Amino acid sequence: MDTLFKGVTAVTMSEQDGGVIKDAFVGVSGGKISYVGREIPREPAASVIEGAGKVLIPGLINAHTHLPMAFLRGYADDSPLREWLYDHVFPAEAKLTDRAVEICSRAGIAEAVSFGTTSVSDMYSHLDSIFKAADEAGIKYSGSNGAIYFGEESDFGFETCADTVNMRGMHLKWHGVDGGRLRFDASIHAEYTSSYPLWEAVAEYAINNGLRVHVHLSETKKEHEDCLTKYGLTPAQLLDCHGLWKNGGIAAHCVWLTQEDASLLARRGVSAVHNPVSNQKLGSGTADIAMMRRLGVNAALGTDGVSSNNNLDLFEEMKAACLLAKNKERDPAAMSALDALKMATVCAAEAQGRQNECGKIAPGYDADLVLVDFDRPHLTPCHSVISGLVYSARGSDVVMTMVRGKTLYKDGEFLTIDWEKTKYELAHEVMPLVFA
Amino acid sequence: MDTLFKGVTAVTMSEQDGGVIKDAFVGVSGGKISYVGREIPREPAASVIEGAGKVLIPGLINAHTHLPMAFLRGYADDSPLREWLYDHVFPAEAKLTDRAVEICSRAGIAEAVSFGTTSVSDMYSHLDSIFKAADEAGIKYSGSNGAIYFGEESDFGFETCADTVNMRGMHLKWHGVDGGRLRFDASIHAEYTSSYPLWEAVAEYAINNGLRVHVHLSETKKEHEDCLTKYGLTPAQLLDCHGLWKNGGIAAHCVWLTQEDASLLARRGVSAVHNPVSNQKLGSGTADIAMMRRLGVNAALGTDGVSSNNNLDLFEEMKAACLLAKNKERDPAAMSALDALKMATVCAAEAQGRQNECGKIAPGYDADLVLVDFDRPHLTPCHSVISGLVYSARGSDVVMTMVRGKTLYKDGEFLTIDWEKTKYELAHEVMPLVFA
Repeated sequence: MDTLFKGVTAVTMSEQDGGVIKDAFVGVSGGKISYVGREIPREPAASVIEGAGKVLIPGLINAHTHLPMAFLRGYADDSPLREWLYDHVFPAEAKLTDRAVEICSRAGIAEAVSFGTTSVSDMYSHLDSIFKAADEAGIKYSGSNGAIYFGEESDFGFETCADTVNMRGMHLKWHGVDGGRLRFDASIHAEYTSSYPLWEAVAEYAINNGLRVHVHLSETKKEHEDCLTKYGLTPAQLLDCHGLWKNGGIAAHCVWLTQEDASLLARRGVSAVHNPVSNQKLGSGTADIAMMRRLGVNAALGTDGVSSNNNLDLFEEMKAACLLAKNKERDPAAMSALDALKMATVCAAEAQGRQNECGKIAPGYDADLVLVDFDRPHLTPCHSVISGLVYSARGSDVVMTMVRGKTLYKDGEFLTIDWEKTKYELAHEVMPLVFA
Repeated sequence: MDTLFKGVTAVTMSEQDGGVIKDAFVGVSGGKISYVGREIPREPAASVIEGAGKVLIPGLINAHTHLPMAFLRGYADDSPLREWLYDHVFPAEAKLTDRAVEICSRAGIAEAVSFGTTSVSDMYSHLDSIFKAADEAGIKYSGSNGAIYFGEESDFGFETCADTVNMRGMHLKWHGVDGGRLRFDASIHAEYTSSYPLWEAVAEYAINNGLRVHVHLSETKKEHEDCLTKYGLTPAQLLDCHGLWKNGGIAAHCVWLTQEDASLLARRGVSAVHNPVSNQKLGSGTADIAMMRRLGVNAALGTDGVSSNNNLDLFEEMKAACLLAKNKERDPAAMSALDALKMATVCAAEAQGRQNECGKIAPGYDADLVLVDFDRPHLTPCHSVISGLVYSARGSDVVMTMVRGKTLYKDGEFLTIDWEKTKYELAHEVMPLVFA
């Protein structure tokens, strides 16, 4: 085998209780997990990684973000929502070029990888540039362009809509690249930023091409209620009428989702992606994840963009999800650390349609693995590895991130991203371009 | 001068806007800050610390915690509250010895120091052992023993009450040690764990000896409402009647505080210490910090004990405070990053009665300083240093912690705590003693 993790505490996520194996051996061959057990495997390994004091987890999956928004970290924080969006964020984004987005994406990917993220579901414009950055960096990437279209049906035929919003181009160029490491998701940005011809065109294109969808859904009260007023239907119901949920996919935020909406998403196999930090930071409200899960919705976790977070740390997001749920229900048992870890691994893999390739440490799965150093004061003592991961650890405890057996990050160093170059380009190209 | 920080971004907290100085020089002489400015000081320095890419902040102040509870990290998390307390936490605590508490305190202090905390207001039993650990480690420590007493007045005279709850002993031994680095605060654990003879004895002892008080106040709805039912007064009102607030001090949690309570605390100079992570994790509720501040209460931040957090990271606590306030008000402007940073520095210093010695970077103040490395992906780019500190940084970005000019922690190494020994003793003495 290529690599053997020796004497590690493996949190496999392959059992309902998390499947923690102490003093485990985990072997990697040809990019796949080839061995998981308590005994030393017979087959020799080309490389052995000592796991004592460390915890091996499935790579974390960020099921909703906007990677290039790294360039807005800390920009105009704490402003009222409309002022923040219209006076700051949108004008800054309007100045981005393909080249700038590629640099910003590299920066976002570097942060995500350093914090133990191996797969990302993303939505942004200049999508070709993000795919390029993700391709080079070696992460798993499910990209969508969040199409915005306010026109009438008469303005285009369905075939041309796919071209109008650059859906066909991105699909044909990137979907399935590197054995499916890169995927294209059909997408509308949100109900309130588009009209029915787009919904139907995207729905049809997704169905005809076996694509999943990625949509912002009921993030704010205003968006949810305006839709009810305008159409007499919730955004979830409205988009369902236009066929958008037929192939499953991701509904991001779902803060104002009704019980009927949740049942609908569950029936359609659409996953709700919870973004607890962003929802709180923007004052959007508290998504009722417990209700959604009770009604059968697969719930995953996302960081949303850096500008409303302000980082890409899924460890922090797991803790935030638990705290928010416990506070909402006034019950410390409302969401467990294990629940949150599932939302960032197995459930997120399902949200991406990658449940047969990642989210678990099990033979045959891709070797998307993250090593967390527990030999630190804030992780000592350790009564529960899963509590430690969710309530005490943070992304910066990650000492190695591997995708398909390839190491992307180790002990503070990036192996596939030139971080110094990225930092230089951010400072000397992107910042002057956007903020000069 | 002894030490010069050169070319650093200093967040001085000596102005209402945070007083950020870029490319600053900060000098330390004889344990005090002796120079702050943009020009290089004339006086040569024995040691120069390069500050490029780094941010220098006043040491963070944890205004309510229980340091020894580090030993319970991740123990029985996610259980219903009563079960967690009565079946797990209390039985474990009952087994602690003085020696065990000293070890656990060292562990808690190590974590706090590694995360940039220079001063702690603490409450726990076996207090002598914690003072000893704090004394040796070199942090600022305001210790209180959270007295519990259900007896009647006839059981003791006031003089003996001070002895009964070991108040006089701790006061005489530790208050004012090392020029006031260590302080003793008079304390009752909470209204619901004591009776009026204790309140009056503690109040009298505090007044007679110029001590501040430290009390848990209205943390849970049950505690607040039971007090109303039993006495017809809120806990804040009741304890006021017995003179407990006369010398000012710390009221921890204040989740269920009424407006009248807040006005009372403001008049008495009692600070409210907000513990947003713990309050959420235990499902206690959401303290109305905005209301308290509007009514003139000085509000600070605390982590509470590790067992309900599960770490001692004030960076995380600052972010949690902002997120909780923004979500409560559904307004991204409800609490700013600067507000939170004040709560962990200048306001926390005031809560401790240390406002003339720390909480700011200003000439004459103690050199309680923390250096944060901003040359990291999750802190790049940096549109706002204060946003970066609160929303993107975490304790593990701290690369140096100094108290009164003495370095306690640098680049992952402890200079006053033997971390390997502490870890060994935790594993081989405390764990077998408590959990065998």
